[in-house]
Amino acid sequence: MSEPGGLFGGIFGRGADAGGADTSDAAWLQAMLDTEAALARALERAGLAAPGAGAAVTAAATAANFDPAELGRQAALTGNPVPALVRALSARLPEPAAAAVHQGATSQDIIDTAMMLLARAALDAVLARLGAAAAAAARLAAAHRDTVMTGRTLLQQAVPVTFGLVAAGWLTGIDEARTALAAVRRERLAVQFGGAAGTLASLGDAGPRVAALLAGELGLAEPVLPWHTNRVRITELAAVLATASAAAGKIARDVTLLAQTEVGEVREGGGDPAGRGGPGGPGRGGSSAMPHKRNPVAAVATLGCTRQVPGLLATLTAAAEQEHQRAAGAWHAEWQPLSALLRLTATAASWCADLLAGLEVDAGAMRANLDAAGGLPLAEHVATVLAARLGRLAAHDLVAEAAARSASTGRPFRDELAGDERVGAAGLTASQIDAALEPSGYLGAAAELVDRALAAHEQAESKLAGHAPGDRATGPAAGPGVSPEAVRKK
Amino acid sequence: MSEPGGLFGGIFGRGADAGGADTSDAAWLQAMLDTEAALARALERAGLAAPGAGAAVTAAATAANFDPAELGRQAALTGNPVPALVRALSARLPEPAAAAVHQGATSQDIIDTAMMLLARAALDAVLARLGAAAAAAARLAAAHRDTVMTGRTLLQQAVPVTFGLVAAGWLTGIDEARTALAAVRRERLAVQFGGAAGTLASLGDAGPRVAALLAGELGLAEPVLPWHTNRVRITELAAVLATASAAAGKIARDVTLLAQTEVGEVREGGGDPAGRGGPGGPGRGGSSAMPHKRNPVAAVATLGCTRQVPGLLATLTAAAEQEHQRAAGAWHAEWQPLSALLRLTATAASWCADLLAGLEVDAGAMRANLDAAGGLPLAEHVATVLAARLGRLAAHDLVAEAAARSASTGRPFRDELAGDERVGAAGLTASQIDAALEPSGYLGAAAELVDRALAAHEQAESKLAGHAPGDRATGPAAGPGVSPEAVRKK
Amino acid sequence: MSEPGGLFGGIFGRGADAGGADTSDAAWLQAMLDTEAALARALERAGLAAPGAGAAVTAAATAANFDPAELGRQAALTGNPVPALVRALSARLPEPAAAAVHQGATSQDIIDTAMMLLARAALDAVLARLGAAAAAAARLAAAHRDTVMTGRTLLQQAVPVTFGLVAAGWLTGIDEARTALAAVRRERLAVQFGGAAGTLASLGDAGPRVAALLAGELGLAEPVLPWHTNRVRITELAAVLATASAAAGKIARDVTLLAQTEVGEVREGGGDPAGRGGPGGPGRGGSSAMPHKRNPVAAVATLGCTRQVPGLLATLTAAAEQEHQRAAGAWHAEWQPLSALLRLTATAASWCADLLAGLEVDAGAMRANLDAAGGLPLAEHVATVLAARLGRLAAHDLVAEAAARSASTGRPFRDELAGDERVGAAGLTASQIDAALEPSGYLGAAAELVDRALAAHEQAESKLAGHAPGDRATGPAAGPGVSPEAVRKK
Amino acid sequence: MSEPGGLFGGIFGRGADAGGADTSDAAWLQAMLDTEAALARALERAGLAAPGAGAAVTAAATAANFDPAELGRQAALTGNPVPALVRALSARLPEPAAAAVHQGATSQDIIDTAMMLLARAALDAVLARLGAAAAAAARLAAAHRDTVMTGRTLLQQAVPVTFGLVAAGWLTGIDEARTALAAVRRERLAVQFGGAAGTLASLGDAGPRVAALLAGELGLAEPVLPWHTNRVRITELAAVLATASAAAGKIARDVTLLAQTEVGEVREGGGDPAGRGGPGGPGRGGSSAMPHKRNPVAAVATLGCTRQVPGLLATLTAAAEQEHQRAAGAWHAEWQPLSALLRLTATAASWCADLLAGLEVDAGAMRANLDAAGGLPLAEHVATVLAARLGRLAAHDLVAEAAARSASTGRPFRDELAGDERVGAAGLTASQIDAALEPSGYLGAAAELVDRALAAHEQAESKLAGHAPGDRATGPAAGPGVSPEAVRKK
Repeated sequence: MSEPGGLFGGIFGRGADAGGADTSDAAWLQAMLDTEAALARALERAGLAAPGAGAAVTAAATAANFDPAELGRQAALTGNPVPALVRALSARLPEPAAAAVHQGATSQDIIDTAMMLLARAALDAVLARLGAAAAAAARLAAAHRDTVMTGRTLLQQAVPVTFGLVAAGWLTGIDEARTALAAVRRERLAVQFGGAAGTLASLGDAGPRVAALLAGELGLAEPVLPWHTNRVRITELAAVLATASAAAGKIARDVTLLAQTEVGEVREGGGDPAGRGGPGGPGRGGSSAMPHKRNPVAAVATLGCTRQVPGLLATLTAAAEQEHQRAAGAWHAEWQPLSALLRLTATAASWCADLLAGLEVDAGAMRANLDAAGGLPLAEHVATVLAARLGRLAAHDLVAEAAARSASTGRPFRDELAGDERVGAAGLTASQIDAALEPSGYLGAAAELVDRALAAHEQAESKLAGHAPGDRATGPAAGPGVSPEAVRKK
Repeated sequence: MSEPGGLFGGIFGRGADAGGADTSDAAWLQAMLDTEAALARALERAGLAAPGAGAAVTAAATAANFDPAELGRQAALTGNPVPALVRALSARLPEPAAAAVHQGATSQDIIDTAMMLLARAALDAVLARLGAAAAAAARLAAAHRDTVMTGRTLLQQAVPVTFGLVAAGWLTGIDEARTALAAVRRERLAVQFGGAAGTLASLGDAGPRVAALLAGELGLAEPVLPWHTNRVRITELAAVLATASAAAGKIARDVTLLAQTEVGEVREGGGDPAGRGGPGGPGRGGSSAMPHKRNPVAAVATLGCTRQVPGLLATLTAAAEQEHQRAAGAWHAEWQPLSALLRLTATAASWCADLLAGLEVDAGAMRANLDAAGGLPLAEHVATVLAARLGRLAAHDLVAEAAARSASTGRPFRDELAGDERVGAAGLTASQIDAALEPSGYLGAAAELVDRALAAHEQAESKLAGHAPGDRATGPAAGPGVSPEAVRKK
Repeated sequence: MSEPGGLFGGIFGRGADAGGADTSDAAWLQAMLDTEAALARALERAGLAAPGAGAAVTAAATAANFDPAELGRQAALTGNPVPALVRALSARLPEPAAAAVHQGATSQDIIDTAMMLLARAALDAVLARLGAAAAAAARLAAAHRDTVMTGRTLLQQAVPVTFGLVAAGWLTGIDEARTALAAVRRERLAVQFGGAAGTLASLGDAGPRVAALLAGELGLAEPVLPWHTNRVRITELAAVLATASAAAGKIARDVTLLAQTEVGEVREGGGDPAGRGGPGGPGRGGSSAMPHKRNPVAAVATLGCTRQVPGLLATLTAAAEQEHQRAAGAWHAEWQPLSALLRLTATAASWCADLLAGLEVDAGAMRANLDAAGGLPLAEHVATVLAARLGRLAAHDLVAEAAARSASTGRPFRDELAGDERVGAAGLTASQIDAALEPSGYLGAAAELVDRALAAHEQAESKLAGHAPGDRATGPAAGPGVSPEAVRKK
Repeated sequence: MSEPGGLFGGIFGRGADAGGADTSDAAWLQAMLDTEAALARALERAGLAAPGAGAAVTAAATAANFDPAELGRQAALTGNPVPALVRALSARLPEPAAAAVHQGATSQDIIDTAMMLLARAALDAVLARLGAAAAAAARLAAAHRDTVMTGRTLLQQAVPVTFGLVAAGWLTGIDEARTALAAVRRERLAVQFGGAAGTLASLGDAGPRVAALLAGELGLAEPVLPWHTNRVRITELAAVLATASAAAGKIARDVTLLAQTEVGEVREGGGDPAGRGGPGGPGRGGSSAMPHKRNPVAAVATLGCTRQVPGLLATLTAAAEQEHQRAAGAWHAEWQPLSALLRLTATAASWCADLLAGLEVDAGAMRANLDAAGGLPLAEHVATVLAARLGRLAAHDLVAEAAARSASTGRPFRDELAGDERVGAAGLTASQIDAALEPSGYLGAAAELVDRALAAHEQAESKLAGHAPGDRATGPAAGPGVSPEAVRKK
């Protein structure tokens, strides 16, 4: 229901066109078929299948040839859909090609390798969309390097910051997540091929050679061992997805807060200007009941995705405790959560990129909110200035008392300070107080930090550029394999 | 993908025919439409909609009239599919019926009430299948009330138990889960109807009356307040589903362990004798690579479902922290996990019922495994007998030493005991040792406990019978409402 | 570290004096000793232990007599601390009292029953503090029944509500959680007593009688069966705690948002007026770096507790899949998470009660925030008024366009409406527009709903009063047992 | 309670002596004090504190000087213990040293940096213990490279494997986890220093220089930006700990299964030969109620730890959505789960290392279990041999039918095969059948894979050797900092 094309797909399962990840039945089926086809080609190259078998299997291995519902029914008999798929695929082929299907493999080899193929496509989607998000965040950081706003801790105004620094923080989180995603994409996606219990015994002594050829065909790494019940790859994959989701969620949370009616410092752009809810419908962010509303839909949708992720991560991590040579349930419990995690992370990344690309920033509102606090966010600055004269704790307490008086009397903080005789005794003049209360004079290293973040982003970009999505040839085990698509189309 | 009809649906999303729960797009759409239709009827009964409007809306409110993919696309503009659905539904109706659509409601009213309708159907499915599972467990408990087997703690043989007691434990867990499910089914499924922010202001002072009529139409409870951001109902619903799942998972885990090749005390029946993986395919439990295998597929599939549940429960519980009058993301994060939880729990219950109904018990293997331990599981009994003569700790240590000697020498435990001079000194004869080592003489209250569990089961049955699935009239807020199906079919 | 008396105890582990739950080593040790002592008394009453043995064991069973660190070291040898505790307790006693220690029991009997005792005390604490929270919420609801404020959906101003309705929503959530907690407290806390594998074989045929006496001694229910690996009680207990935590978290989240500098509609009271951070320290809510701040510490601490809960709930639910007659790890994995869950829920309830009791409500700020939106939150009202003249969709779109114009031009929404010729054409006058824009005229059923919630609260109070904490005699299995404290003090 | 020295510490919180991680109050306090002391030294080096201030603060910054309980009480006023600690530390110092305390810092700087110090020590502990575990697994893999046993899938006997291959799988999982842990240890542990809202404004333009000096003092990396609400470091840290825990859990699960009474292929060594449960107590693995038992305590304790981890990981990942410049609750919700995660992972690693170092392997039992299956685990081999003659599917079905007949008749599988006329027709002789049924002839690439895993382990060892625990100078931001301990001891 949450996949592209489903009732909730627009929110939780953006399609490939919007940078999403496809984990539909068709995508799963094709990934399993791609694995079977690559295996047939590998067997042929190893001399274990008849010449032409690889191409014949590849030609037949198209998802449209098979009925997911029927395979699903039969899967209930064996606990997974592979045996029925193997029979159906074999039935479409004459001998000797049919004999090459699934040779040496066990169901888990096919499903796990298919998961790796789905994961690779999803990681590419996430990387692409987070790349766009990072670019947008970098633009915001540069454009607002010196835009003063209030910092907020525990949802209370604290001291001044810049919106550039806020955006730089978002940027850094995204880039760290991208670095981690790219590392898993590059190093941890491996073929699974071990046969019934990991020895590849049915291939005699040819097993490792076929495994290497299969890895090459698919552009996946060849692992040291079959990893049927060593699920470290899965937990690592899940973890970087969850980290990416968390980075997007932090941004979306900030945007919902900054976009509050009473804050109004940012608002979402309308996205596709033509994007309206059907004839007469509202644009993005409209409400069915409240015609004036402009809801932060992209941020809300991002959070709607990211809030589902920690539970899925827990499920996948718990499922890593797998028995002996194949787990009784824990393995099966991975398929749906991993699909959801791939889909939700890609969709969250997609929403987040849209959000950042269209974000409208109201520098005037930022300044107005800061000014409305009557100088209180500069209390620390005044305390710092006074500390040199009175000692840190005495200065802190003096300022806290003036702030408290201001809050209870409604008299401006500035006046409470100026009227405190200890301030006068310390030799601080009214104009020095005013200077201490000017936000732009108390930004510390904000601009320098923005510059550092932008420089780090450029470095990250150049590192990540070497691992661009689709650039499979850079994988550690990439081989000269025939492209499945190429063969199938012949 | 895991819904009925999907590639993994046979494992994780058994259809209604197998006692599963339908949370497909079509089911969601129909539940939302049923809510809109009931609202129109309620408005008409309250005099707020034109005569006939309720019937007209009801007639149009059929899922097949709407395109989930198109609604899904438009949902991306508003964050949920309701606004587009309202427009599409209204467009199918002439005035004045069109004016009755969605009047007074907000999107969340429709989605939350639809969730309650889906939950009701799923709870009925879970209750029905767990009822079957309980009946099967009760039969096993009664039939094997005196079938001796070894008890196992920390996966080590401990002291004798009966298989009847094991089955009685399963039964008790299921019945406790059913009781909790029935209570939520009976008391906690409530209509959601509050309008934009819970005041029902757009209906003037008629809001509460319409809410009551709507509850009656749908056979749902009328809550004290709209519960838009009070998600206690959702966490309670999720919790009883998770408890039911846990009860099923415990049974499945035991079955996988008892069915191990080396244990062989139970095995799964083959299910539907006609159930084969297509022409020439294996029966249930066959393996693609290993032709001799009879895998415990129902138990594995049960665990494949139940292992996904704790993470979903955590997601839904975390999502209960919802802001103000409608949450920005946390609400949205409920839809998919709750759907999955309903579907997986119903499917696990269905698998578990099949498993128990067909379970083949090998009493001979149970006795053989116990005997193979050479009396060691009776060590506690011997210690108990000796304790009366030597004191508890001295007896414990003596027996532990004899057991350790037996393990290291391979000499039977009986002989190690008989040869220990402290045993002789305590006056215990060889035939008394033999008697102490007879498992059937050391079953304590096992039979009595089985009887208690069966009696408690009968009580639970009679209590639960009053709340049979479909018996909506017993609901606290059941009204004389027109059945949606009846109206639609006119 | 997070228990009372620890470095983080003030935040996450409020002591019994603040309504918290004690799950310290000392509390655990005493609960295990209370169980052993009650068992000795039960054995004596059953004629299985020497006269006086019960009293002797009870007298020795004081936590202060034992060294947790030493027991902890020895626990590493057996996987739990009970065997060492049994030896240490026995060593303090002469025969024949020593022989009565732990007779018939297994380690799990002691730990599980001790968990039930800790849970009972914690539930009483949670119920007491949530009772105080409910009373405070009811006072707020009554006092602010007609205090107008803006409703907020997706963190945007929506339509007017009252603060009374907000508080009534909080109240309802708390009361629902209390009802669920009380039901578990009343019905699901049961003694665990089954011996090595649940047959109580070492007690011959006296097992069930001893179990019943033990339940009576402790004021716990007697279960149908020993529940060693049927963990439904634990998942149910965990679930109601998590629901209570969620109810508190929702309130705290709202308070942090309403207390934002830019919103300022509520603020936390200072708590104990004497409560300052040591000599010269700030009062509650002070900041080390920012002297002006008044942080919503109680709300933040509540969330600091409640955010830890979903993960713990998942752990306990996953752990319910327990093997055979004692689980190899899953059981052990419960002790720490359940302790944390009891402690955190009680502490969250305590913070929440403080928060509500001291909450300062600024009705003027509420009105000001609503007015600052220039009538936009009344857009739905205008649309409703216009709908009667123009049809619902046309009215919705007209109003949405006027709202959009107002947002872009800065011209008041009222003027945009008055200037829209379609409004005039519909016959709506300027004064009718003004009337439609008055918030107090668009509160729908708010006041009625507040009254309903308060009435429901009174009903809940009278129901809950029958199960007041400490009123153990109302428990289903309460017996005429000697109070452990009474015996020990003799 | 689960920390070293606590009642459950022996199971869940092994002390530093056993390779555990210390997250006690004292450890937290010292880490916070080490941070404050390093800050004072950094300020002095930057010319912002008086000469000697760094040494004076360092000398006073000893946990024993402070009362955790009192700090805990005061923490309730501010939401964290730092303000009280700063006051208490300052109070122990004369001016001008007192003025150097906490200058420029906010509470979160101190707590987050302290978390990094605790994490570093814990990662070193985990790495050390997993190094020992890997060495033991490598020894097992080498020693049992050719020890034949049955492979098991879905807990059913499948095809033969070797125990060497099983151990090699464990080894690979551990080494992958170590690699990931070392990368986080090396690259992601960074100082936190940003002041009130991340601008370091109270230090004027000296902030970044002080941050760099502080990082150098502590041997932590200097981050691009303060990371107060960018929690990617925390989610990454949590993820590698969870992965390490999962690797240990998989091993422990296998050991509990292989050690089952009915399987008996491995058993735990007794650990410390002197390790007994006090005078007269059982050795490791003894049972209080069942004197004959030798429970797999290390495996059970490992699982008792690892099963708590997924929930903690979910909590920390969910907590990464942090608002603005400091989160209202989400940050606080990290402290306890992260402490638990560090402690539990280190303890699980410690148990796992003990388990592997002492594991007793019974090659005879392995062979006997395989032989007891009467050749069925070689069914795939027979099918492979027949496939060359009959085609794969026909061979599969023939063998499956023979296996099914053998299971139902009790006649040996060999005889069922020999008696099947299709076998004869295919030209397979009785001695060829016997050869096909010999397990050691059907091990495929098992030995080659073991060699590969051992070679990969040696590579991993040499890579990891460069980042040995304690070797802080290799850190990316390691500076010439004075060791806190060195200064304090002066």
